[in-house]
Amino acid sequence: IVNLPSSFLQGILERLDAGEIVIGDGGFVFALEKRGYVKAGPWTPEATVEHPEAVRQLHREFLRAGANVLQTFTFYASEDKLENRGNYVAEKISCQKVNEAACDIAREVANEGDALVAGGVSQTPSYLSCKDKTEVKAVFRKQLEVFMKKNVDFLIAEYFEHVEEAVWAVEVLKESGKPVAATMCIGPEGDMHGVSPGQCAVQLVKAGASIIGVNCHFDPDTCVEAVRLMKEGLQAAKLKAHLMCQPLAFHTPDCGKQGFIDLPEFPFGLEPRIATRWDIQKYARKAYDVGIRFIGGCCGFEPYHIRAIAEELAPERGFLPEASEKHGNWGDNLSMHTKPWVRARARKEYWENLKPASGRPYCPCMSKPDGWGVTKGAKELMQQKEATTEQQLKELFQKKKF
Amino acid sequence: IVNLPSSFLQGILERLDAGEIVIGDGGFVFALEKRGYVKAGPWTPEATVEHPEAVRQLHREFLRAGANVLQTFTFYASEDKLENRGNYVAEKISCQKVNEAACDIAREVANEGDALVAGGVSQTPSYLSCKDKTEVKAVFRKQLEVFMKKNVDFLIAEYFEHVEEAVWAVEVLKESGKPVAATMCIGPEGDMHGVSPGQCAVQLVKAGASIIGVNCHFDPDTCVEAVRLMKEGLQAAKLKAHLMCQPLAFHTPDCGKQGFIDLPEFPFGLEPRIATRWDIQKYARKAYDVGIRFIGGCCGFEPYHIRAIAEELAPERGFLPEASEKHGNWGDNLSMHTKPWVRARARKEYWENLKPASGRPYCPCMSKPDGWGVTKGAKELMQQKEATTEQQLKELFQKKKF
Amino acid sequence: IVNLPSSFLQGILERLDAGEIVIGDGGFVFALEKRGYVKAGPWTPEATVEHPEAVRQLHREFLRAGANVLQTFTFYASEDKLENRGNYVAEKISCQKVNEAACDIAREVANEGDALVAGGVSQTPSYLSCKDKTEVKAVFRKQLEVFMKKNVDFLIAEYFEHVEEAVWAVEVLKESGKPVAATMCIGPEGDMHGVSPGQCAVQLVKAGASIIGVNCHFDPDTCVEAVRLMKEGLQAAKLKAHLMCQPLAFHTPDCGKQGFIDLPEFPFGLEPRIATRWDIQKYARKAYDVGIRFIGGCCGFEPYHIRAIAEELAPERGFLPEASEKHGNWGDNLSMHTKPWVRARARKEYWENLKPASGRPYCPCMSKPDGWGVTKGAKELMQQKEATTEQQLKELFQKKKF
Amino acid sequence: IVNLPSSFLQGILERLDAGEIVIGDGGFVFALEKRGYVKAGPWTPEATVEHPEAVRQLHREFLRAGANVLQTFTFYASEDKLENRGNYVAEKISCQKVNEAACDIAREVANEGDALVAGGVSQTPSYLSCKDKTEVKAVFRKQLEVFMKKNVDFLIAEYFEHVEEAVWAVEVLKESGKPVAATMCIGPEGDMHGVSPGQCAVQLVKAGASIIGVNCHFDPDTCVEAVRLMKEGLQAAKLKAHLMCQPLAFHTPDCGKQGFIDLPEFPFGLEPRIATRWDIQKYARKAYDVGIRFIGGCCGFEPYHIRAIAEELAPERGFLPEASEKHGNWGDNLSMHTKPWVRARARKEYWENLKPASGRPYCPCMSKPDGWGVTKGAKELMQQKEATTEQQLKELFQKKKF
Repeated sequence: IVNLPSSFLQGILERLDAGEIVIGDGGFVFALEKRGYVKAGPWTPEATVEHPEAVRQLHREFLRAGANVLQTFTFYASEDKLENRGNYVAEKISCQKVNEAACDIAREVANEGDALVAGGVSQTPSYLSCKDKTEVKAVFRKQLEVFMKKNVDFLIAEYFEHVEEAVWAVEVLKESGKPVAATMCIGPEGDMHGVSPGQCAVQLVKAGASIIGVNCHFDPDTCVEAVRLMKEGLQAAKLKAHLMCQPLAFHTPDCGKQGFIDLPEFPFGLEPRIATRWDIQKYARKAYDVGIRFIGGCCGFEPYHIRAIAEELAPERGFLPEASEKHGNWGDNLSMHTKPWVRARARKEYWENLKPASGRPYCPCMSKPDGWGVTKGAKELMQQKEATTEQQLKELFQKKKF
Repeated sequence: IVNLPSSFLQGILERLDAGEIVIGDGGFVFALEKRGYVKAGPWTPEATVEHPEAVRQLHREFLRAGANVLQTFTFYASEDKLENRGNYVAEKISCQKVNEAACDIAREVANEGDALVAGGVSQTPSYLSCKDKTEVKAVFRKQLEVFMKKNVDFLIAEYFEHVEEAVWAVEVLKESGKPVAATMCIGPEGDMHGVSPGQCAVQLVKAGASIIGVNCHFDPDTCVEAVRLMKEGLQAAKLKAHLMCQPLAFHTPDCGKQGFIDLPEFPFGLEPRIATRWDIQKYARKAYDVGIRFIGGCCGFEPYHIRAIAEELAPERGFLPEASEKHGNWGDNLSMHTKPWVRARARKEYWENLKPASGRPYCPCMSKPDGWGVTKGAKELMQQKEATTEQQLKELFQKKKF
Repeated sequence: IVNLPSSFLQGILERLDAGEIVIGDGGFVFALEKRGYVKAGPWTPEATVEHPEAVRQLHREFLRAGANVLQTFTFYASEDKLENRGNYVAEKISCQKVNEAACDIAREVANEGDALVAGGVSQTPSYLSCKDKTEVKAVFRKQLEVFMKKNVDFLIAEYFEHVEEAVWAVEVLKESGKPVAATMCIGPEGDMHGVSPGQCAVQLVKAGASIIGVNCHFDPDTCVEAVRLMKEGLQAAKLKAHLMCQPLAFHTPDCGKQGFIDLPEFPFGLEPRIATRWDIQKYARKAYDVGIRFIGGCCGFEPYHIRAIAEELAPERGFLPEASEKHGNWGDNLSMHTKPWVRARARKEYWENLKPASGRPYCPCMSKPDGWGVTKGAKELMQQKEATTEQQLKELFQKKKF
Repeated sequence: IVNLPSSFLQGILERLDAGEIVIGDGGFVFALEKRGYVKAGPWTPEATVEHPEAVRQLHREFLRAGANVLQTFTFYASEDKLENRGNYVAEKISCQKVNEAACDIAREVANEGDALVAGGVSQTPSYLSCKDKTEVKAVFRKQLEVFMKKNVDFLIAEYFEHVEEAVWAVEVLKESGKPVAATMCIGPEGDMHGVSPGQCAVQLVKAGASIIGVNCHFDPDTCVEAVRLMKEGLQAAKLKAHLMCQPLAFHTPDCGKQGFIDLPEFPFGLEPRIATRWDIQKYARKAYDVGIRFIGGCCGFEPYHIRAIAEELAPERGFLPEASEKHGNWGDNLSMHTKPWVRARARKEYWENLKPASGRPYCPCMSKPDGWGVTKGAKELMQQKEATTEQQLKELFQKKKF
């Protein structure tokens, strides 16, 4: 029984203020990389122009899976990023064209159902190289212009490692008058300069964000914990905001402050870490219990993961997403399987208690994030030398025998 | 540099006879289940009618990834199967309509590049319930009529657990005059009645198959070994055929004769077993070395896994697939990543030697296929009682406390 | 080349004050349980009377391995403990007899080399049942009488979960005028009432202990960290004491506040957690670097583990223990092995980098300390109901289906 | 209740012919290495002269644990072995003296209970270097002289990798007129020249062995399987012999034909593989079910492992060993533990179903026997070049970068 929520066609804040659960979408760069439309490394979204049908189809799958928000596929689509990295794109595609196409596709699919379109900006190379407020803000403002022209429903500043830059982004986005959400890619340890989640939350709300939280970099458990700490920070400061969480769909209990980018498996060996749909149901429940009401995903989240959020919270919401026509509650569709012992798995206890094996007897359960031989000291050195050329780095490797 | 092979627009046997490598596509039911269009349990392909755009997009991704063969999405689309299980489909969709739509979509996408369309039939409920040759053949013949009407390029009889039924399928398909490939879902232990891979191969070739091999049920290593045994069987019988392999993209070293269906993780907890792209490159090389020239995938194979086959064998083939524009050789696209220690992963040795962790410290590496409490005796009992109703099975469970 | 240290025949404080490293012995109850002389469960030391030759031999092995301190095998030999639990001992053996025999055996072996004899007391059932200071102190005083009669070299109060009881023990032992060491079986989280390691250290030193630290319950890494926190506590309070560490030889990263007793493997499935000699060499180095100078072991430490401490610290100490005649530096004795590839393992890098497999593909790497089905709530309930009879507990189990 | 068996003081064949279960002892070289009396690498038994009290104590522990056979500690005590490797022994100790002392100690302890003394010979360096029958037999005859002088109860030829040499040993031992047992250190794949277990058995029985089986090199499961194959071989050849099994107490599912010596953990990182007492109870039952009646252990077997055999088979034998006074049936002694949740482990189902964790999240479950970098080819080369000097081998390493 698939019903529409009462809030149909209302704005993001009206929905959250009314106590509704808003479900976000999943991760575009990872999903489209596996489908053959995004290049890992640069991770830029020129597919909105090159292959709009592929982007459209992924949006549609997230919508069917229950997403109430479709984020424009504009990750890393700031002008400085596309210019730095974009030279591998066959034909030169302008930043504006990429962003505009992203908005058009998202809106087209959103209109097929009950979803809002959110325009997104994320951290910029400019911040890391110059840290000049005026320059960085100009980059965000350029993206915002497109979002205003295309009239997105609200704005998200996401994937920021430094709260200072996130605050600048929020300040720019607030100029639009539209609601602003802000999520950082941090864990419970806080941002790269050591600002705690609680303090980050306070700064973001003071800058004008109505919705705050975290996205990417860590697994669901870790992200929910980080948002919980943000909530505590706001409470201590007597501030209020809606909470939002869009974690990885990868298990990352063994990663450090930089999140999954530190893991030796990043980005091409992460498969054994992929969350099952049951892992995601547990996440959805946990996020809900902590008070988070904007619950979505980031890298690794495929449509069926988003559907798992919608199915877990169906009792609270009173309806299921369209894609649940092709799914059953805790596996009950397996009662139609050919083999009787598979039919016997059509029950919640079975999937809830399963500890899935990897079929890889020679692999450890936990990684050593520095396992490829870079000592902590060396890593810090490399981070400081961000501008170092590849050649210099290679020489550095050879000398130090990393 | 993406070039077309010399064989462009030639038939499947012309290509194989010329010594070319033909790349198959990946698994539709698993990929579309995750995208929200196929229901696990029945696993039927009504999406060809309900959501053609989703099926079309997946075909397109496999084509871009390098597939030279697009299989019609007609898995389990025999009339007896659809009738038995199809009652959950909202509107009644006829078997013929599903199969025809599948052919149309496959052809439409094949025409976008260098691919052949293969019509596929697979094992039937009729065989298990009656084992009457005439009746089973009639089922296959009904499907074949659609394939002839739609003029597919060649035919595949795939996913057979019993060589007897596979032989009947080949005999029917041969009536068409088109080339016939036949793959069984068996491992090195042979078919469900204990017929060895070598003997299966001999029977299939004698029945008229020009290409033989295995698909589904086991991981790449196991499947390649099964095909190797088939090859030995043919050599011993002084028979010849082209070899074909379309394994799972899941690691299954711990499963028994029934393949991954026995694993406690099947079908909703298999994530930690998913093969990386590097695992698939190793598979492609191994398959090639054994003499297999029709190399594809089955359940679990996503577009990037098919691309990995094409990239591994690019030196032999002389060209890369279209989707390699968004990929690099052994991760060399990572040389453009923001973090220097990720850039340091842009090399073959790194990915070749990585032992990926699962981030799940409480999970074992190997499963116990009977781990959910069904003893071998009980399982055999259940298999014999295949006709037992759900209700009876549940009572059986309650009494025996499986 | 085995030399005697300069401090031969000096007391414990003279040695430590001179900056020497003092090596403790290993765990008696676990080692003698495996040899067939101690009963797990009660864990009492009646073997000193029943089988003195077995106790003597174990002392001798620790001495040969490098131990400078032989602790009397008087663990849990307080009168209240032996009376409660001792009824399984064939002939009734008096508490005094057990303690006296323990002293005699330790002294006899100590005289064979360079070792001091330490009399030990540990936590008492009386504390848990009545918590009456006078009564508990009387129990310790009774044990102390034997130690004074037998003239041990110094005293150790060890294996205390509650700092309050440990302080009472130190106060009693100080009445003797002999040096007193005090170690608690706590980790970095502190004692059972939440007193931090730093605070525990301060209280123990104020009560008169000259040497403080931890023993048992946690693995080497965790214990060293707990002692480090004790050191910080002392520094903050401007107090001074020698530091001591006697951890388990089991890996326990997954256990909670109660230490290894919580692990589902305790006490009969701990084998896969046993530390290698190389693990212990790492521990010895780490302990030394933190400033610990009394370095020994507890449960799980066999003679070869103690030898590993002595070998790791041989450069600092200038000599090797007697048992090193039968060992080589980092495996260099393997250069005499029959198989050449085993000879190739005669080098430090090999053993230092080895990640030993368990050969148990169905076992997880980490346990769930509550894995056998007792929820945290239930466990707390059971702890509160310490006096509950076995029968009542069983009924409790049956009702609640633990 | 500890009773004596009816066969007290009878010979080995009388006992086995009467259908009794005979329990062997455990491994001396590994146990005494950990106690500080044997040097890994040469693995020679000079401790019988240097430290008789340590050898005596270990014999006594095995006797108390239930062993009915005490093997003289004469492993690798052939003259050629001791001369080659013995130069590290402080004072020159003659081969004869080592062997005589071994016999005296074993007899002294055997007289304390119900045990027979078995003199043992094992494979010789002479066989590998010259393979001259006369020379090799002379080596065995020299050892036999000591066994005859000391009047052992029967003889065991054990730890042979080549059946040819084992047959020579049996032929020499048969000259004595005493019963002869013969065990090879092989698995189901057979001896180093590819002779199957069944064929090995046939040759050993034809040479005169009354008891045949396997010892060392593989884990209990693998060894029982090898003995089962031996039994099949004898049945096919219509021969009869008593069956014997003395496996490792290490899990080795991942090792190749050479057994645990190939494992990267051999010999100093095997701890995570140590069998629990429950593993050994399963082994004892399995061995019994296969028809093996001489059931003991080899490397890794400590006294408590031998006790586990005796306890598992107590129902069949009607009595428990002496050391069971300090143990309980399937952990029932834990009902006296202080903590209630440990008391709850005093039951068979708990220990039988426990999957013990290793507490080592970074370690794999299975090893790669060639993991340290020696390819199979290189290893074979090295084996062929057995006579190569250490220096040459090191050069070989450096050149080939093993």
